[in-house]
Amino acid sequence: MLNRLKSAVIGAVSGLEATNGATDGVQYNKATLAPKFPYGRPHFLGLGDDEVQMSADHKLRPIIHPSKPLPYNTGYAECVNAGKSRWNEDQAVYRQGVLSKLTQTDVGNIQKFSIPYTYYGIFDGHAGVGAALCAANQLHHIIHEKLVDAQDDIWIHFTEKHLPTTKHRDLLIIGALESAFREMDQLLLEDRNKYQAAGGCTAIVSLLILGKLYVANAGDSRGIICRGEKFVPMSMDFTPENERDRIRRLAQEQPALLGKEFTCKEYLSQPRAGDLGKTVMFRDAYMKGWAYKTLQPEDLKVSVITGHGKRSRVMGTIGVTRGFGDHDLIAVYQKLPIKPFLSSHPEVQVHSLLPTENNEVLVMATDGLWDVMDGAKAAEIIAKSLTAFEDKKFVSAATCLVGYARGSLNNSWQLKGGKPASCDDISVFVIPLLPYKLEYEELLQKCSSTDFKDSCIEVSHVEENGEVEEEVSEC
Amino acid sequence: MLNRLKSAVIGAVSGLEATNGATDGVQYNKATLAPKFPYGRPHFLGLGDDEVQMSADHKLRPIIHPSKPLPYNTGYAECVNAGKSRWNEDQAVYRQGVLSKLTQTDVGNIQKFSIPYTYYGIFDGHAGVGAALCAANQLHHIIHEKLVDAQDDIWIHFTEKHLPTTKHRDLLIIGALESAFREMDQLLLEDRNKYQAAGGCTAIVSLLILGKLYVANAGDSRGIICRGEKFVPMSMDFTPENERDRIRRLAQEQPALLGKEFTCKEYLSQPRAGDLGKTVMFRDAYMKGWAYKTLQPEDLKVSVITGHGKRSRVMGTIGVTRGFGDHDLIAVYQKLPIKPFLSSHPEVQVHSLLPTENNEVLVMATDGLWDVMDGAKAAEIIAKSLTAFEDKKFVSAATCLVGYARGSLNNSWQLKGGKPASCDDISVFVIPLLPYKLEYEELLQKCSSTDFKDSCIEVSHVEENGEVEEEVSEC
Repeated sequence: MLNRLKSAVIGAVSGLEATNGATDGVQYNKATLAPKFPYGRPHFLGLGDDEVQMSADHKLRPIIHPSKPLPYNTGYAECVNAGKSRWNEDQAVYRQGVLSKLTQTDVGNIQKFSIPYTYYGIFDGHAGVGAALCAANQLHHIIHEKLVDAQDDIWIHFTEKHLPTTKHRDLLIIGALESAFREMDQLLLEDRNKYQAAGGCTAIVSLLILGKLYVANAGDSRGIICRGEKFVPMSMDFTPENERDRIRRLAQEQPALLGKEFTCKEYLSQPRAGDLGKTVMFRDAYMKGWAYKTLQPEDLKVSVITGHGKRSRVMGTIGVTRGFGDHDLIAVYQKLPIKPFLSSHPEVQVHSLLPTENNEVLVMATDGLWDVMDGAKAAEIIAKSLTAFEDKKFVSAATCLVGYARGSLNNSWQLKGGKPASCDDISVFVIPLLPYKLEYEELLQKCSSTDFKDSCIEVSHVEENGEVEEEVSEC
Repeated sequence: MLNRLKSAVIGAVSGLEATNGATDGVQYNKATLAPKFPYGRPHFLGLGDDEVQMSADHKLRPIIHPSKPLPYNTGYAECVNAGKSRWNEDQAVYRQGVLSKLTQTDVGNIQKFSIPYTYYGIFDGHAGVGAALCAANQLHHIIHEKLVDAQDDIWIHFTEKHLPTTKHRDLLIIGALESAFREMDQLLLEDRNKYQAAGGCTAIVSLLILGKLYVANAGDSRGIICRGEKFVPMSMDFTPENERDRIRRLAQEQPALLGKEFTCKEYLSQPRAGDLGKTVMFRDAYMKGWAYKTLQPEDLKVSVITGHGKRSRVMGTIGVTRGFGDHDLIAVYQKLPIKPFLSSHPEVQVHSLLPTENNEVLVMATDGLWDVMDGAKAAEIIAKSLTAFEDKKFVSAATCLVGYARGSLNNSWQLKGGKPASCDDISVFVIPLLPYKLEYEELLQKCSSTDFKDSCIEVSHVEENGEVEEEVSEC
């Protein structure tokens, strides 16, 4: 998000004090507030303070991988940007949790039955590291709570085989992810006057549960499934260009959001004062085709979406349209809040796990990777890497991806052929999918030999870096 | 739209005087205003006054077809409803127009070059016959104007073969249809205090021009292409159920539209006062999945969309979400305007004409037909009919479709097997597509032998039941 967020950073910084009327009547001096979470790299990297400093060396851009194996030897690698910000604004996290039931057998014994899940998340911060740190520290707790809320219904759909189980179960897990994303964003809103300005971040999250993969995405990080040299996208990029329809419709329905400077209309070429009275081609927010109108003074306003591709912007300010935070972000010159156009709502894609070989993986990475390679290139690198390495092969594959995208430093950071490399933060998970299918098959077998009773006690917990938090409730 | 609009009719009638504050400060007595267009059947049926009366015989429900052949022997048939309203609230229209250029040859002769087009429209009225009559009498003029606006650019894309012609041309024609639909709806808004209450109508329109078929649809009439016993949908039905997302998002963004009675949230089962404090499953406007919340008093409101399938409603009132008019329609009990949730914006589908046989047809019909048959059944009836009849085969096919759907009167109107037949108005076009492909091939041939000059004079006209209106302008 390097180039695209330069102006967002300016916007956020210049706008903070101006727009931030404290909601409870007290004026906070944001400069003196502490951050909610101290800066650091993902816990699973096991870096000491010195190593955290070293990891942000913009000249070296060292590629960091985990000190201990991740679940099923999942691969991870990251490197810092080439100088756009002091710290690495990406964050990554994984957690393993269970949804459990204690069931009573016919002879009165208590038997514990657990549905395991694994969660991976990547958050790409902008205008600061705060929002990404909050998401990396808090989102999995919220998702776990939402899954516990849905646990009874997930159980019913799991154990009562006559129901159209998977479709309903999908809607419960999708709903848990959707409502968790909303709550995470609300939390950042509530925290905005209590902690140091957090900026914003994109979010991509994958949940592996009950033989399926759920990828929830809000932003321009990307998830793809690689199978040999083929790949299947598991997310779409939420940029102003891709979200043109949603944003222009919102602008048309709530014109006050546009102030006096912006319009929801689009013109084939930017109208100029000299063309007043002439016929121009335009389209309204809902239109797919082009129509004609006589150029009026109000047509000289700026379109709410400008630019194309990687250079597209909302109100000339931000190049990504979904994620968490940005509650204080304003359009630089016009002093209009951007947030109503940004959404924390994720798109959730579902994939049934049917891999037969251990080379089928989910690649989840920030745009630092995708700025310099497409899915086909990533699949090619992964396929080569998984064949070449036997030991720690998923970590090696992640390292190969980050290494390729970062390139090497000559006068500037360059790819192998000499083209510009990625100067953004780069974070990559390479997650093997076969183990989660096997885990599910084992669960199904255990389930078929268990006698579920109506009377039960629920226990659910999430592993927090080795420490287990447990909730018990009677049902 | 029989069952679905009963309450809409009540709503419109009960609400007219209540909500209709005249915009210019003058109070109109709507009861004394004249209709904009007198009631009648489509001109091309050639019915006299007595025949118009007879065509509305609810006991006989005669199937009417055109007195003279339509372009390329296009088929049409209609019959009135079984008593839900005095008159047939469907309207149908066709027009043939041209976009013309007068070009100057090298030797100074003026040469005329024309792009022909054919237009078919079906409008299904509710809460009166007014809106459908206005659309049948006016929409083709507006579309012609919009095509003339786009004519220069259509010409450029047609004559300069090196341009990526068809994609751009499509966007111009789609834009013409989209903006014409908007203007038609605006016209009904402007007319609401000048003429008798017009109610509302759905609209499906097809435009055959330059070797392509454009189907613009706003409502629950339907267009399908039939090829042998196979069919391809050329439109989607805009019902509250299908438009759930758009309507609930609009409601979430503009909660004032919901008054105190409605909510944009959806609940798995309707919350009851006795369940306050309990956990319920819900989804917010943007959600695809289900989540959980504790039932609060505000959750006892009614969802803005209720019911499923043919029984789905916006604010308990109307069962169709796109079309023209309805500017005075209000929710019966809550006195809230419905119009902000209804849209005149059409979806436009494009189809390249490549038929090789004369049995490939576009079937366009009101929901009176589709209430009792699906696309597969229609294709089956068409295929049999086109094989059985040699003379007037498209009119025969249209008649077979209407006859099947109307059924016969025993105690009630019944299909052949005894199931209930359609009691709604039924109108059907069966349009052969091969002639339009041949027409285009001829045009291409003529075009390749013509020398186009920059200097030209434009002439465009539309045939109005035999009378030709002509516009001439220098360019």
